[in-house]
Amino acid sequence: MKTVGIIGAGQLARMLALAAYPLGIKTKCLSFTDENPASDVTDVIICREDDNKALKDFVNQVEVVTIETENIPLEFAKKIAADKPLYPSVETLAIAQDRLQEKQLFRSQNINTAEFFPIDSLESLKHAAKQLGFPCVLKTRFYGYDGKGQAVLTCEQDLMHAWQQLGEHPLILESFVPFELEVSLIAARNLQGQIEVYPLTRNEHQNGILRVSQAPYKHPLNELAQTQVLNLLKHLNYVGVFTVEFFIANNTLIANECAPRVHNSGHWTIEGADTSQFEQHIRAVCNLPLGSTKPKGFSLMHNCIGHMPDIEKILAIPGAHYHTYNKTPRASRKVGHVTLCGENKLEVLEQDKQITSM
Amino acid sequence: MKTVGIIGAGQLARMLALAAYPLGIKTKCLSFTDENPASDVTDVIICREDDNKALKDFVNQVEVVTIETENIPLEFAKKIAADKPLYPSVETLAIAQDRLQEKQLFRSQNINTAEFFPIDSLESLKHAAKQLGFPCVLKTRFYGYDGKGQAVLTCEQDLMHAWQQLGEHPLILESFVPFELEVSLIAARNLQGQIEVYPLTRNEHQNGILRVSQAPYKHPLNELAQTQVLNLLKHLNYVGVFTVEFFIANNTLIANECAPRVHNSGHWTIEGADTSQFEQHIRAVCNLPLGSTKPKGFSLMHNCIGHMPDIEKILAIPGAHYHTYNKTPRASRKVGHVTLCGENKLEVLEQDKQITSM
Repeated sequence: MKTVGIIGAGQLARMLALAAYPLGIKTKCLSFTDENPASDVTDVIICREDDNKALKDFVNQVEVVTIETENIPLEFAKKIAADKPLYPSVETLAIAQDRLQEKQLFRSQNINTAEFFPIDSLESLKHAAKQLGFPCVLKTRFYGYDGKGQAVLTCEQDLMHAWQQLGEHPLILESFVPFELEVSLIAARNLQGQIEVYPLTRNEHQNGILRVSQAPYKHPLNELAQTQVLNLLKHLNYVGVFTVEFFIANNTLIANECAPRVHNSGHWTIEGADTSQFEQHIRAVCNLPLGSTKPKGFSLMHNCIGHMPDIEKILAIPGAHYHTYNKTPRASRKVGHVTLCGENKLEVLEQDKQITSM
Repeated sequence: MKTVGIIGAGQLARMLALAAYPLGIKTKCLSFTDENPASDVTDVIICREDDNKALKDFVNQVEVVTIETENIPLEFAKKIAADKPLYPSVETLAIAQDRLQEKQLFRSQNINTAEFFPIDSLESLKHAAKQLGFPCVLKTRFYGYDGKGQAVLTCEQDLMHAWQQLGEHPLILESFVPFELEVSLIAARNLQGQIEVYPLTRNEHQNGILRVSQAPYKHPLNELAQTQVLNLLKHLNYVGVFTVEFFIANNTLIANECAPRVHNSGHWTIEGADTSQFEQHIRAVCNLPLGSTKPKGFSLMHNCIGHMPDIEKILAIPGAHYHTYNKTPRASRKVGHVTLCGENKLEVLEQDKQITSM
């Protein structure tokens, strides 16, 4: 039986592990932390990031390695890739970790992005802000997620404060995109080059954290988004599931960031698509044929932040699917999600109101 | 976190365990054999059937106990039920283990069955055969599955041979039902009395082993079958998933047997229904609200007997779902299943031909 190694053992690894079993594929996780949502569904090896022996042991026990977070040390990724196939590649990881390279990648493929400038001094920040005008957004280039490491600058007085707050990190200043809505496009490619693309998902964030995803989101830009992501996958010679988050402003797609992995906005695919993004990723990294991405009716994924809603109330909603991640409740923490599926979009949206009020 | 104990650790336990995780419910299996398909997805305790200490330990580690096979010693079931809720109950297990009591149950609820006589001697066999006429079917009352422990009698000369073959067991002689087709109906009931019923599934057997199930099977008798099973569940005060296999002959339903558990003919519900039979069973025995049983398009479940087909060929079929059970290949053994889902029944049936030819 093939074993897929996963760096990280959070909820994404947990759902990858569950999706792999029916295919006769095992998973084994390597984690640098103590709390591991995947640990009750698959093997998890816990080690320090500099424990070369543990890494070696881990790599010896698997046939291929993938990740559930792009934020792993590149040196670590290089060591893995020296021994076993690593998907995504070290090169793609390097790009996905860095907002600057990410945007440069998008631009190189003729994909719209916000205007941006790399920032390495207060001087360069002032200069860039002048070019972009206000409001603009200062972001750390590395390790940003769920809205962390960001500051919106509305006037010159904000510059110094933001610099004091973030200036120790490599930064990027981006023009502020007055977007109407946020969408994401998830696609997968296997080693043989087969590519399958899910339909657009519409995402709503609150305080930088994804709250709700709806799919399929029917929009005239769906086809363009699919083409752009398809081209990115080919350009990167990518293997696995890949996600691009876009803004839509003035009927234009503006790529915001990418994730070389399964994505929170794709959780609806577990029940809402022919093949879930988790099974698709396992298929891709094992070089198996990819599955159909066709949606089944309309799906709405509701993230559970901080705590899980009452399971009895959720399961009393017809077509509701409850997913807990086995995590300790904590403010602003994604501890699970609920997916609502149905033929009638309005009915599903009504059901979501019930969840929101719980 | 709640832990559901499962007696048995075969493929049904495996799929129950996988369905339980997203609900935050753990499973733990007790097995009397060495090869346990569930063992790579959940904890399995292996013991002898008379190991009271192991049983006690197991029961202490779980909140509720269920089964994946009705063929467990009743004494064993009684010991469990003395300590923890056991679903199905000892009384239901006793009925489901015995073809005679099973048929008596059906009759008591005004459900048609074949004509039958209990057989405990060659004399009673001869007498019953005279009453029923030929052909008729001699079956062991206990421990029959996949067509084992059965003999079709076509003439008086067959009586002695069949008696020599099966006479050491308690037996039942049944009239032969010249049926047009076989269907099954799967339903679930929780402790609060909520009942949800899946649509009829059409089943095709070969050499006594289920080969293919199709659902939903639209037939005028669907409603009657649903009512009959609903009444059975109420009558038994049943908790969990329950299955009745029917013949259809002359536009009449004839109940053949029942299974107080998830059933092979319900595997299509994993992808083909709003809620899978496995999640439904877990919900029922944990007294959670039951889920919608609505089918999603048309599904065909193809049992893999003896060996798994080539995974690459299966996954190349759009809408195909591959389920291996982690079992050693062996002739006549169910080692996995493939479910084909689609909107177009004819297309799905075409795809099934590809699998049959593999």
